[in-house]
Amino acid sequence: MEENKNSDQQTIIAVDAMGGDYAPDEIVKGVAAATLDSSVQVAIIGVESQIRNILQKTDHHAGQIRICHTDEWITNEDNPREVIRKKANASMILGAQMVGAGDAHGMVSAGNTGAYVLAASMYIPRIEGVRKVAIATVYPTRNVRHRRDIFALLLDVGANIHCSVENLVQFAIMGQVYASDIKGVTDPTVALLNIGKEPYKGGKMLSTVHKVLDELPNVNFVGNIEATDVLTGLADVVVTEGYVGNIVMKTVEGLAETASQLGKYAFKHSLLGKLGLIALSGKIRELKKLTDYSEYGGAPLLGFKEIVIKAHGRSKAKAISNAIKLAAKSHRDRICLRMEMELAHFSQSIENVDLFDTSE
Amino acid sequence: MEENKNSDQQTIIAVDAMGGDYAPDEIVKGVAAATLDSSVQVAIIGVESQIRNILQKTDHHAGQIRICHTDEWITNEDNPREVIRKKANASMILGAQMVGAGDAHGMVSAGNTGAYVLAASMYIPRIEGVRKVAIATVYPTRNVRHRRDIFALLLDVGANIHCSVENLVQFAIMGQVYASDIKGVTDPTVALLNIGKEPYKGGKMLSTVHKVLDELPNVNFVGNIEATDVLTGLADVVVTEGYVGNIVMKTVEGLAETASQLGKYAFKHSLLGKLGLIALSGKIRELKKLTDYSEYGGAPLLGFKEIVIKAHGRSKAKAISNAIKLAAKSHRDRICLRMEMELAHFSQSIENVDLFDTSE
Repeated sequence: MEENKNSDQQTIIAVDAMGGDYAPDEIVKGVAAATLDSSVQVAIIGVESQIRNILQKTDHHAGQIRICHTDEWITNEDNPREVIRKKANASMILGAQMVGAGDAHGMVSAGNTGAYVLAASMYIPRIEGVRKVAIATVYPTRNVRHRRDIFALLLDVGANIHCSVENLVQFAIMGQVYASDIKGVTDPTVALLNIGKEPYKGGKMLSTVHKVLDELPNVNFVGNIEATDVLTGLADVVVTEGYVGNIVMKTVEGLAETASQLGKYAFKHSLLGKLGLIALSGKIRELKKLTDYSEYGGAPLLGFKEIVIKAHGRSKAKAISNAIKLAAKSHRDRICLRMEMELAHFSQSIENVDLFDTSE
Repeated sequence: MEENKNSDQQTIIAVDAMGGDYAPDEIVKGVAAATLDSSVQVAIIGVESQIRNILQKTDHHAGQIRICHTDEWITNEDNPREVIRKKANASMILGAQMVGAGDAHGMVSAGNTGAYVLAASMYIPRIEGVRKVAIATVYPTRNVRHRRDIFALLLDVGANIHCSVENLVQFAIMGQVYASDIKGVTDPTVALLNIGKEPYKGGKMLSTVHKVLDELPNVNFVGNIEATDVLTGLADVVVTEGYVGNIVMKTVEGLAETASQLGKYAFKHSLLGKLGLIALSGKIRELKKLTDYSEYGGAPLLGFKEIVIKAHGRSKAKAISNAIKLAAKSHRDRICLRMEMELAHFSQSIENVDLFDTSE
């Protein structure tokens, strides 16, 4: 770890202290923890007096933290489009400006997702050729193939409602680069979420995406995947439109809640339930863990020239600390630059091919 | 129940003996069980010698069963569009023809879903004005509002990939009629699956559907619902495009599998797991039940002038028997006629309104 600690000394991550259900308390505690674990530099943006109060009560390396004061912030109730103009000095916006100006090398926020995507889009340059950014959620799987780790990536989960063939192909390429880094595998598998395994399924747009991905030499495309297999780990990267990805993610969250309720119901109504609940509660926690990406460092917004991480709204200190370290690692590994190179490679390879002529 | 038994004496349900993972064994046993439970008449279509063999070993009321012989049937591996022409005497096709000709009042098959939708569309008349039929899956919920039962309806789950405003509004109306019958509530709530609760969410098509449903006096529309709440029972009827509905349904199935694997993993790796598994296995069965609509009589294909029920591919005798009795009840309650009246009412109410001018 010493090597990483040294190489992080030059890495500055901007952190929005004011976004998330447990802000600023848990955010500041997460920053403090990250400075103890690594040599990352953090620029934390929010109400200075509050931040200082929390830091006073928490172990941290003061030399790695710079506080940038503002008394404006965006809440989850704010309408993203309106608030972006109204609260020009909101912590989230200042963070995005900092990254855009090169004063930070990445950013973490647990705040309003819509506003975050807009703020990042306004101030952080996009990778050349990328038309739409994607939110990628990292989730653990059943790991059917005994891989080194059990994480997989689902994108987009909500930055865009509908996508074009080109958008989805770019998501596949960016997702592959990101997954190869966080999973530590050289050739992660990529699949397209669809309503059947056959290449012709899902209408003209999806069947064209299938065709393009199948022909790309640098993408380890394994074909269509059905929603039943998203959680099995059959693919390291699952590509879909934001509307569908968002609904998959929320269905999983909802079902975890339902399982938890079932457990409580059984507890009330049967002795077997009573005996089983102590053990079951552990299982339900595992199931909920499965669905809570705050445990896994947060969801990257892919398509920008710097790393932008959305931590879950319910993030506590540990999740924030993980997200900060993940952002620093992504910067160190030059993930965004590698995405840029792969995307340029793809653009060249299709220069003379009319694959995007799809009018559905 | 005596009243129902008598009123079913005139009701003939066509049953495809050859479709489904456990055909013809479990299908024929399901038919046998239905004749013991009710006075429904069944026209069972398939290989006569096989059907007779199974019936010989199973209690049944012979007077309620008529066997229609064919030695052709459609498998799950068959391509729906091709097989519909190639196997003109397939059991599923003969069943649809029987309903179309008025020789049966409803149909049940556990076979190839795509072929079933096509066969029904070719031979069974659609309700006037219905442009697309929908597959509606019936699922149990957490029943947060303490309703008389815990079932809810999600449609479409795969008959169509994409839908128009008019399609989705028709699905809402048909779903409401169906739900009011099977749930026994007079005014079931209807919601639109979307990525946020706000009326403007999800793009122009969905926001227009929201507007139309909100203005319809006969639909108890409760607005947008997020995927996290599909299983909570916040709405009795959830409307969505087939592509999305299919993916929600399969995500739930996949997660139930994952929960089951987690249980097995815990069993292997910890004593607590070992102690808990006996109780847990019951909970996992409950969770799987939650996702297996074969327990609830199957999924109706809505939009035809007669009731058409798709039983789950993994249906066993009990599920088939339930589906047959459900079809008979639907015929008795004139569900399809009530849908036709509600849809006609809707057509009149929008005659002079240009609600469908949406070019997204």
